[in-house]
Amino acid sequence: MSDNNKIPYKIYLSEDEIPKQWYNVRADMKNKPAPLLNPATLKPMGFEDLRPVFCDELIKQELDDTTPYIDIPQEVQDFYKMYRPSPLVRAYCLEKALGTPAKIYYKFEGNNTSGSHKLNSAIVQAYYAKKQGLKGVTTETGAGQWGTALSMASAYLGIDCKVYMVKVSYEQKPFRREVMRTYGASVTPSPSMDTEIGRKINAEHPGTTGSLGCAISEAVEVATKTEGYRYVLGSVLNQVLLHQTVIGLEAKAALDKYNITPDVIIGCAGGGSNLGGLISPFMGEKLRGEKDYRIVAVEPASCPSFTRGKFAYDFCDTGMVCPLAKMYTLGSNFIPSANHAGGLRYHGMSPILSQLYHDGYMEAISVEQTSVFEAAQQFARVEGILPAPESSHAIRAAIDEALKCKETGEKKTILFGLTGTGYFDMVAYQKFNDGEMTDYIPSDEELAKSFATLPKVEG
Amino acid sequence: MSDNNKIPYKIYLSEDEIPKQWYNVRADMKNKPAPLLNPATLKPMGFEDLRPVFCDELIKQELDDTTPYIDIPQEVQDFYKMYRPSPLVRAYCLEKALGTPAKIYYKFEGNNTSGSHKLNSAIVQAYYAKKQGLKGVTTETGAGQWGTALSMASAYLGIDCKVYMVKVSYEQKPFRREVMRTYGASVTPSPSMDTEIGRKINAEHPGTTGSLGCAISEAVEVATKTEGYRYVLGSVLNQVLLHQTVIGLEAKAALDKYNITPDVIIGCAGGGSNLGGLISPFMGEKLRGEKDYRIVAVEPASCPSFTRGKFAYDFCDTGMVCPLAKMYTLGSNFIPSANHAGGLRYHGMSPILSQLYHDGYMEAISVEQTSVFEAAQQFARVEGILPAPESSHAIRAAIDEALKCKETGEKKTILFGLTGTGYFDMVAYQKFNDGEMTDYIPSDEELAKSFATLPKVEG
Repeated sequence: MSDNNKIPYKIYLSEDEIPKQWYNVRADMKNKPAPLLNPATLKPMGFEDLRPVFCDELIKQELDDTTPYIDIPQEVQDFYKMYRPSPLVRAYCLEKALGTPAKIYYKFEGNNTSGSHKLNSAIVQAYYAKKQGLKGVTTETGAGQWGTALSMASAYLGIDCKVYMVKVSYEQKPFRREVMRTYGASVTPSPSMDTEIGRKINAEHPGTTGSLGCAISEAVEVATKTEGYRYVLGSVLNQVLLHQTVIGLEAKAALDKYNITPDVIIGCAGGGSNLGGLISPFMGEKLRGEKDYRIVAVEPASCPSFTRGKFAYDFCDTGMVCPLAKMYTLGSNFIPSANHAGGLRYHGMSPILSQLYHDGYMEAISVEQTSVFEAAQQFARVEGILPAPESSHAIRAAIDEALKCKETGEKKTILFGLTGTGYFDMVAYQKFNDGEMTDYIPSDEELAKSFATLPKVEG
Repeated sequence: MSDNNKIPYKIYLSEDEIPKQWYNVRADMKNKPAPLLNPATLKPMGFEDLRPVFCDELIKQELDDTTPYIDIPQEVQDFYKMYRPSPLVRAYCLEKALGTPAKIYYKFEGNNTSGSHKLNSAIVQAYYAKKQGLKGVTTETGAGQWGTALSMASAYLGIDCKVYMVKVSYEQKPFRREVMRTYGASVTPSPSMDTEIGRKINAEHPGTTGSLGCAISEAVEVATKTEGYRYVLGSVLNQVLLHQTVIGLEAKAALDKYNITPDVIIGCAGGGSNLGGLISPFMGEKLRGEKDYRIVAVEPASCPSFTRGKFAYDFCDTGMVCPLAKMYTLGSNFIPSANHAGGLRYHGMSPILSQLYHDGYMEAISVEQTSVFEAAQQFARVEGILPAPESSHAIRAAIDEALKCKETGEKKTILFGLTGTGYFDMVAYQKFNDGEMTDYIPSDEELAKSFATLPKVEG
């Protein structure tokens, strides 16, 4: 970069430059992600099989692995204009604090009330639900960003929104509930006593703090048993990764303006929606052999689906009522230890990312949460933004990468996804501030026990 | 406006367009704000008198009522680039929801971790403290935005930060404390037992929930008794209004780009820093007779300094150790009733704004908090942003103004200041969501009792 010092702190696109189409990375994958399977018959699920659970238009997107670009409806584009384009930030202050020759950029998705990138898909799913004439949607939420995002989108469109919130998050984040209620949503801690599956899980695991897999089962049960409702999901699914490509498309357009090519692209990975959205356009170039990038997924050591999971068909939920997906998984009854703060607590991983990882197109690392909060604090103090614990996994990895550059003298360009803000994570920050945060790495025995529940499926 | 439909949802300036000078509205005022008085001698305070309390460079700004433009130091400009320019938003969705012919714009200052405009002055005051070679700064905070802002600025510059937080806010906003601690600040609920004045107030008013005036006394006491520390203030003072003019200067530049002239400019008013900052460049044109604008201050009915206060010299703090300022005041021992949520709880008002109001250049109205939260909820659901209770006073007034336009058919252009986000105000939102929020209007007798403490000063 010759004109390095001309790059502003924040590269903003204009509203006209917000993407008008999503990019479907599956179109460029030789090995497509494996199809969803019916949990009863173990046969691939088609459009009709999925209709009781999902909105029609979203099923089409879920199943379409050949169309490279898919139009963003005008109404969704208008909503995007309320909080997008999001800034691509040059981390000048972090670079200076680290004393690194690396150039660090982050795409910041936290400048909206949901506090994260989740709104990018929430508005789409709520829009198609409304367009189909439905009364409302049900969903689960872990850290709470997705539930908030869906509440916002539902309020904007005037449809009903029922959220099942993982109990441990519900208790750690009392104010998240109030944000969702302010947007008119109903919020129930999961497992609840409202659903068959909730009652069953509560009976089998008294005092359980819940899991995303369990909350999904509850939300799906309510959607399929209530007239005029469908279930929507904030991550994992192909459609969600598709919607989240606005992140990567904007990031790439902003970098292209200044002729910047990242060497390494880093994102945190829970279900994979932010990571998939950020990397898709870059991955497309890599898949087509046009360019090469190092792409790194960062996950919690306490929930290590990529780095220690199995690539296999598994249930997407604890109740085993959802379709089976082929993905890196820790087993559908895996629940992160109670000291795990924040999100990134899902047992599985996006089938798209799982296939790409399996095929060697990306790397994955895991990091422990105390070191994640150290990175979060350092970042907050120099860059100003108080990051979400989830996002801070990517910060940790970006800082480590920049510190390696400091040792080697390499002037690498690092791009990472800063998915959101930590304003509702102060219980976790307080633990860290008080020196009471602990780490946890599941033992091989624990994982073996959890793997034993994997369904026996060829594929 | 002929090209009305070409106006984007958000008008962003480029980083080059961030103001390089603040605008000092006092230079254009015929009746200057009255000088600060020494609380012991009741004589106007000069540079030397103020040195034990404030940083030298800030005193110069405080006393300068003739220089129209004052340079923003390069280091502060660089910091501004991390979160500025802030967007000027066209409230298309709110307009549609209200069915009003009015055009509504808001300048949104909440996209930074302090959650408000307060950072604009915090970085300046911390910068001059560091430049003067000081070890640290002390301050008070009410709703918590100012304390967070100062913590952020202090962390960035590597100086110490001691915050005295009004006890009721400290209790209502437990997580604010953790944000400040994450940025390395110490936070003490006020009145504390750490200071002479704190012990005195606790003894005289057992169980008091505190006030800004009391927290100011404590912070000033600590600053003047601790080597290498000075006191800094988040509102009221002339210097703070000066720094906050970046809001108005950016807003005006953004409007000018599209040839838009507001008919009405609305801001919430506590100590007056956001309102003063927003209106200053417009007020300058009005004072110079170049243009006319309706300018409206909105304050809580429970703390009505403009609409029911007296224009008189009064102490800035409860402990009566600070200089006296001539301002609209409810009396320095006025404490808003305990059911008052959020900020805007100061007993006095910026001397600059007080003089302008006294001279008829602006209007003031007061609103009750239940109606404020109704406006906040309506705004959040259509515009996406969850507003701070303080900012929602301006939303209430802007909505009412737009509804009047609906009745009359007038196509007025309304500009209001959206000072921040309500992420740390969920206790108040919960009360509202549960239907348990109440209003309070102090009786004339209550105010008379409080006015009786006004010092006897000619002026």
